[in-house]
Amino acid sequence: MKDVQKQHDDRGLPIQKVGVKDLRYPINVLDRTNTLQSTVAFVSMYVDLPHNVKGTHMSRFVEILNNYRGEITLRNVNGILSKMIDVLGSQSAHIELKFPYFIEKQAPVSGATGLMDYDCKFIASLQRGSRVLDAILRVDVPVKTLCPCSKEISVKGAHNQRSVVSIKIRCREFVWIEELVEIAESQASSALYSVLKREDEKFVTEQAYDNPVFVEDIVRGVALRLRSDPRITWFSVESENYESIHNHSAYAAIELG
Amino acid sequence: MKDVQKQHDDRGLPIQKVGVKDLRYPINVLDRTNTLQSTVAFVSMYVDLPHNVKGTHMSRFVEILNNYRGEITLRNVNGILSKMIDVLGSQSAHIELKFPYFIEKQAPVSGATGLMDYDCKFIASLQRGSRVLDAILRVDVPVKTLCPCSKEISVKGAHNQRSVVSIKIRCREFVWIEELVEIAESQASSALYSVLKREDEKFVTEQAYDNPVFVEDIVRGVALRLRSDPRITWFSVESENYESIHNHSAYAAIELG
Amino acid sequence: MKDVQKQHDDRGLPIQKVGVKDLRYPINVLDRTNTLQSTVAFVSMYVDLPHNVKGTHMSRFVEILNNYRGEITLRNVNGILSKMIDVLGSQSAHIELKFPYFIEKQAPVSGATGLMDYDCKFIASLQRGSRVLDAILRVDVPVKTLCPCSKEISVKGAHNQRSVVSIKIRCREFVWIEELVEIAESQASSALYSVLKREDEKFVTEQAYDNPVFVEDIVRGVALRLRSDPRITWFSVESENYESIHNHSAYAAIELG
Amino acid sequence: MKDVQKQHDDRGLPIQKVGVKDLRYPINVLDRTNTLQSTVAFVSMYVDLPHNVKGTHMSRFVEILNNYRGEITLRNVNGILSKMIDVLGSQSAHIELKFPYFIEKQAPVSGATGLMDYDCKFIASLQRGSRVLDAILRVDVPVKTLCPCSKEISVKGAHNQRSVVSIKIRCREFVWIEELVEIAESQASSALYSVLKREDEKFVTEQAYDNPVFVEDIVRGVALRLRSDPRITWFSVESENYESIHNHSAYAAIELG
Repeated sequence: MKDVQKQHDDRGLPIQKVGVKDLRYPINVLDRTNTLQSTVAFVSMYVDLPHNVKGTHMSRFVEILNNYRGEITLRNVNGILSKMIDVLGSQSAHIELKFPYFIEKQAPVSGATGLMDYDCKFIASLQRGSRVLDAILRVDVPVKTLCPCSKEISVKGAHNQRSVVSIKIRCREFVWIEELVEIAESQASSALYSVLKREDEKFVTEQAYDNPVFVEDIVRGVALRLRSDPRITWFSVESENYESIHNHSAYAAIELG
Repeated sequence: MKDVQKQHDDRGLPIQKVGVKDLRYPINVLDRTNTLQSTVAFVSMYVDLPHNVKGTHMSRFVEILNNYRGEITLRNVNGILSKMIDVLGSQSAHIELKFPYFIEKQAPVSGATGLMDYDCKFIASLQRGSRVLDAILRVDVPVKTLCPCSKEISVKGAHNQRSVVSIKIRCREFVWIEELVEIAESQASSALYSVLKREDEKFVTEQAYDNPVFVEDIVRGVALRLRSDPRITWFSVESENYESIHNHSAYAAIELG
Repeated sequence: MKDVQKQHDDRGLPIQKVGVKDLRYPINVLDRTNTLQSTVAFVSMYVDLPHNVKGTHMSRFVEILNNYRGEITLRNVNGILSKMIDVLGSQSAHIELKFPYFIEKQAPVSGATGLMDYDCKFIASLQRGSRVLDAILRVDVPVKTLCPCSKEISVKGAHNQRSVVSIKIRCREFVWIEELVEIAESQASSALYSVLKREDEKFVTEQAYDNPVFVEDIVRGVALRLRSDPRITWFSVESENYESIHNHSAYAAIELG
Repeated sequence: MKDVQKQHDDRGLPIQKVGVKDLRYPINVLDRTNTLQSTVAFVSMYVDLPHNVKGTHMSRFVEILNNYRGEITLRNVNGILSKMIDVLGSQSAHIELKFPYFIEKQAPVSGATGLMDYDCKFIASLQRGSRVLDAILRVDVPVKTLCPCSKEISVKGAHNQRSVVSIKIRCREFVWIEELVEIAESQASSALYSVLKREDEKFVTEQAYDNPVFVEDIVRGVALRLRSDPRITWFSVESENYESIHNHSAYAAIELG
């Protein structure tokens, strides 16, 4: 059978990324307690294509993924990317893994335990001949924010809401998802929990009232924490506050590298 | 050219609904101030198909829609449905219009005006030979809810959040979208606004603190209002509270007919 | 601390469903090869609330879920629902699990294996004092459809596209997700695969060309298969074809019970 | 009332973007036939914030938007951004408008007319003291792609599917949305239409069969067209093909500046 993809292309245009997008796949992620956590990812895999080749071979991406089945963790992304460069004969390879990640958290007073879910993304690229990944880890941390202005000007109460703090980092040394979650929560009015008994709800309510933060405060606070971490070489932090007095969001962003 | 759709089908199975789904289309909706409001809808149109016919003619649905271009309002849905029954030779016709609707609202103290957006859905069916639509109007009203338990047990503050109250009604007489919005907002801790000056933010914060409601309170309050309206023959009310202390929602629902 | 939820409500309105919605949680699902499959679900849990009680206790829903951690399978949904009725003192309990499910499939010629993902939903209700669930299983099966009209009238080729066949069933005896997938695929122009080598792509292309189906044909074919299965007491089948010649879908639906 | 936002911040961190996100708003867009088209946008507006100021004034963003009500077009984005810099005392201002855009298209044989919808995004930034916008226009063009490999190796037929070609451009002179749509469609196997009579369906089917393109071909073809346009100073082109033989996408991207 003819290999149409292998044909010559004379348009002289290399392609930066070509491959498969949003293939859903079960993966395992190692968590800080050293346990492999089962989750489900949307996986995208791309390589570059030289200017004189017509097409890539899409089925090989999925075959490579299948070879790693049950062993797809952030730790062996390097191996998957090397394999892609090898099998597809490319100069570079890229992978994106988008998955929910679970952390067991204790309610602040009762100690009741429950799982919280965090959307994560791991984007990594490798160049042929290199052993060093260019990798970005993104974690979306839902938190509670209470408005300082509303608290200041009101006789009682203060509007508060769910917000999502998105942290993206590049680092020279491994950073746990758990660490980024802790950083985001430390700068919010309060963390979120899946189980809160009455004594916990009282604690969280009062803690948030005592720690009002604007969307600007959160991104500044997180940025200071990330800037002071010697392992982190670049970061971006965004916060989207789903305002409880509006039907739109408040938003702020800082990027430093 | 052969009309494959018109061929005989001998499997003996009538089809309840067949047609086009999620065609995006500009429409006009008459609002309470008697102005035609331009918006964009996702339109779905279906008819039934008798057991002995192979297929319907999909292009005719879109042609009918095009004939009403610029004049697609809730008022002439009856005409569109009659035309569908006629042109497609069916016993029944169904249409669904999903669109954002805008209402100009004044901030409660400053009077500053701004537009609020509400997701609406209009679902209507007509039977051949009948002039009476079976129609459901759905309006999703984003509001603010403040937790009575959190207020009661906490020394200061109370968690609050954005919630969406979804009202669906069948009625024997016309009911305005604006009326359903007002009903939902009246049972919440506070309405939402697109523009709030500082004096308004103070007002809304204190109003919410003075009117705590559980998700159960909202659906009960709305249900009582709808039940007492002689124009309304059936309704369903749901509320989804995007809890600001959890990463999941609180939810309640009542249906009465 | 005061239990605000337990207070008396004098509005005389019972609530049909109240609880937690869209809590993301890792679950295990037993598959046909008798292996427990790890996946991630959005879980919703509701109970009814009598007319004279102000509110339910939201944290208890999540505590019940946590007690089943690692053992949440479709098989012990009955136990979870009984526990909910018990703990929350309700007359009925409802649970909804929405999750991706993976099936290993072999490419039709090369035999290359790969995982295919299917969106599933399991909705179950239990009444106090009963041991019989009212349960609905929904499976969304992506398939390929090739248009019979386009094939008939064209000198060469025929438009085809990805479609999603959604099957919902109530049954008196257990039916595997794998069985519903097989039924949907059997009525399509072709099944989908995650890995196809060149010889497989040829096979699938020609198979689809030889088996053109309208959206009407798919729902009729699936309905006939489901109707003839003595285990199934009610079903609904929908197909949405993401037409490759339009930017909207073709849709058909049959419900029989 | 105290202006909390105006307070001093001593953390020494400027914020690159702060403001309101995803405010839904009716807008008008001038189309190539010189008609103002009514549509609905999600609007985001941001400014920078100096290191020593605690917060921005969120309500002012919406007030500025309201002042342009009924006149929000791509043409007066410059005025809106100047106003933002002015009113909020910032060094830069950013706006993003995300909206569906409609083009009337004629079916290729019958000439039947119908509206096609295209998702568009306009992102613009202005620096204080400058009159020159940095603007990016993005248009998502749904098209039909037919696989050259499938055609070559199969005795009959060829798999084809809906694909979305996303073009982003920066330009020194105005480029119409209609022009980008035309460029994307010219490189696909066929354009899409909302209405196709039988003779049109035959035409489109055969045209696609005669013009097979890989995802690589589309992005290369579009890139060549964009590169040769002297008005365009930078572009990115992506294509996502919703493969009709897989449940994932094929994807390719080229960026040139």
